[in-house]
Amino acid sequence: MKLNIALLAGDGIGPEVIAQAVKVVDVIAKKYNHDITWTSALTGACAIDACGEPYPDSTHEVCMAADAVLFGAIGHPKYDNDPKATVRPEQGLLKMRKKLGLFANVRPTFTFPSLIDNSPLKRERIEGTDLIILRELTGGIYFGEKGRKDNGDTAFDTCTYTRAEVQRLAKMGFEIAMTRGKKLCCVDKANVMETSRLWRETVQDMEKDYPEVTVSYEFVDAVAMRLVQWPNSYDVLITENLFGDILTDEASVISGSMGLMPSASKGVHTSLYEPIHGSYPQATGLDIANPLATVLSAAMMFEDAFGLQAEADAIRAVVNKSLAEGIVTEDLAGKNKAYKTSEVGDWLAKNI
Amino acid sequence: MKLNIALLAGDGIGPEVIAQAVKVVDVIAKKYNHDITWTSALTGACAIDACGEPYPDSTHEVCMAADAVLFGAIGHPKYDNDPKATVRPEQGLLKMRKKLGLFANVRPTFTFPSLIDNSPLKRERIEGTDLIILRELTGGIYFGEKGRKDNGDTAFDTCTYTRAEVQRLAKMGFEIAMTRGKKLCCVDKANVMETSRLWRETVQDMEKDYPEVTVSYEFVDAVAMRLVQWPNSYDVLITENLFGDILTDEASVISGSMGLMPSASKGVHTSLYEPIHGSYPQATGLDIANPLATVLSAAMMFEDAFGLQAEADAIRAVVNKSLAEGIVTEDLAGKNKAYKTSEVGDWLAKNI
Ligand SMILES: CC(C)[C@H](C(=O)O)[C@@H](O)C(=O)O
Ligand SMILES: CC(C)[C@H](C(=O)O)[C@@H](O)C(=O)O
Repeated sequence: MKLNIALLAGDGIGPEVIAQAVKVVDVIAKKYNHDITWTSALTGACAIDACGEPYPDSTHEVCMAADAVLFGAIGHPKYDNDPKATVRPEQGLLKMRKKLGLFANVRPTFTFPSLIDNSPLKRERIEGTDLIILRELTGGIYFGEKGRKDNGDTAFDTCTYTRAEVQRLAKMGFEIAMTRGKKLCCVDKANVMETSRLWRETVQDMEKDYPEVTVSYEFVDAVAMRLVQWPNSYDVLITENLFGDILTDEASVISGSMGLMPSASKGVHTSLYEPIHGSYPQATGLDIANPLATVLSAAMMFEDAFGLQAEADAIRAVVNKSLAEGIVTEDLAGKNKAYKTSEVGDWLAKNI
Repeated sequence: MKLNIALLAGDGIGPEVIAQAVKVVDVIAKKYNHDITWTSALTGACAIDACGEPYPDSTHEVCMAADAVLFGAIGHPKYDNDPKATVRPEQGLLKMRKKLGLFANVRPTFTFPSLIDNSPLKRERIEGTDLIILRELTGGIYFGEKGRKDNGDTAFDTCTYTRAEVQRLAKMGFEIAMTRGKKLCCVDKANVMETSRLWRETVQDMEKDYPEVTVSYEFVDAVAMRLVQWPNSYDVLITENLFGDILTDEASVISGSMGLMPSASKGVHTSLYEPIHGSYPQATGLDIANPLATVLSAAMMFEDAFGLQAEADAIRAVVNKSLAEGIVTEDLAGKNKAYKTSEVGDWLAKNI
């Protein structure tokens, strides 16, 4: 297969972890006879530095032309804690999501048996956890009208959703649930928010089309509790953008393996794969960041974007092997030898 | 002292847990020579049933005339899962908060050494946790303009904050921090929301007035993570209404003692004390609900609203004694004998 992948390494440790995923994917391509074209482009703080714009048009063109996007991480401390900064790396992320139509962020949370004791949660609470949070990514308060009034003394943000936006996300949620535990939880705040009442109403109307799926409706505050009490009671959760932002980050703690968690953002024009962790600026250039989440994001890309299951399985198998043999970075090494980011990548490439 | 307390028992287990707090407070009043007038009033589902209105004017008058309000819980399943219901118990809660000007919800989270192993989190993660979340309670998306457009196919909610609203809440946060660990964390989403940028800006401007307080600014998604990773790294957190709703519920899981956690809502006209748990409809009338959170809310009332420290300490002491001696309801009894709600109340009243 000819595969055209856009490579957005981003800031901080982004380039280092992306480099390992590239090593792995190149070996997979050779083994399974694919012809990969990598096209790199700038996004985030590095793009601001280069051209004053965190998601330049040239980068957008690269993404639009690609079969999928592999993304590292963005963000740089020099843009933090400055509420008045006019250009921020995060704006690039939001612009990218919007322009690529990436309306669904898929975040699996599962446990790695060998790492389960790294979790802050007790083993008996998390064993068997295998849930997916599906976060709406191009609507809600992120993209609604916002601004100031009264000489800057009043600020406002608007959260807006249309029925069609909810339907499109919920449809994906029902379909994912059908391939798994057949349970769907709609997370909202329908006791307070009108947009949540639209969400709930819309999902209720769709229930009849998926008679095999058991649907529940829970308030976001209750889910924030149950996620850390009994995460293994969930299967698929669907929710709006801001709730999804909070809950996916909360859920990332469950497995104790944050450095291993991949994610996908699916959309109208293309799809994008990225580790859930951030740009970890303090570790930039130190060759210590864990590349496995990015490598597993590449596995998701083979499975979801290209429909290439054997390739995805091969990547996951070698990752599991590295975990079993302790070829891991310092975040997972405990008292054992810690390998460098690049050493882990080399080992994976050699052991596929 | 002459103390005039409004008693809003509410729905579900509300009346049962409130009854135990009344027993305890009456004994305290006798012992310390206070003259208490209890005035009961309806709120929640029971008020809708009685007069079609979840927070009737007559109830509001009772609260306005009182020195403090002791509140049970509200909510009834017959009003759940009906996004089109026009009168809901929760509306009463919101109306009450707004009309009483209860702009600050104070939620302490601490661990009880004897119960620490009930937590889903590991002991070493939570030992020493002693944090307070201060949630803004009368602004934000809860009270902004909301509605539908396009024949109901588009819904919107508006989040609004004024500088004065932020200042008032932040001032309370700084002052609480000064009496404790002198650390304040402002929780926002300033990388996305304009209201959050106003929050951050306002708190930054106030820093100079509290040079002893160390202030940090964290995004709500990051806090949702760290709260369950290292809750003992926090002291005082301040945040807006919706973030506070989610984070206080998440935090309630930490201690493993949800049935014991009190809260206060402070305001312009009066203050209100209530357990953090809900109306637990399934347990209504079974005499099994844990009354300790309500009893400890009464302790907070003595301390905060009346400035009566010895009375508050006496209540807390007898609660600790009941825990130490295992005079507890089924949620805490483990394999030991479970006492009834009313038995726990009787025991507390007798042992003060
Ligand atoms: C950086 C920020 C704008 C972003 C978001 O809130 O969506 C991030 O937290 C995420 O979840 O990808
Ligand atoms: C019932 C609901 C409206 C309420 C809220 O969201 O404020 C509740 O969750 C709370 O925290 O007291």
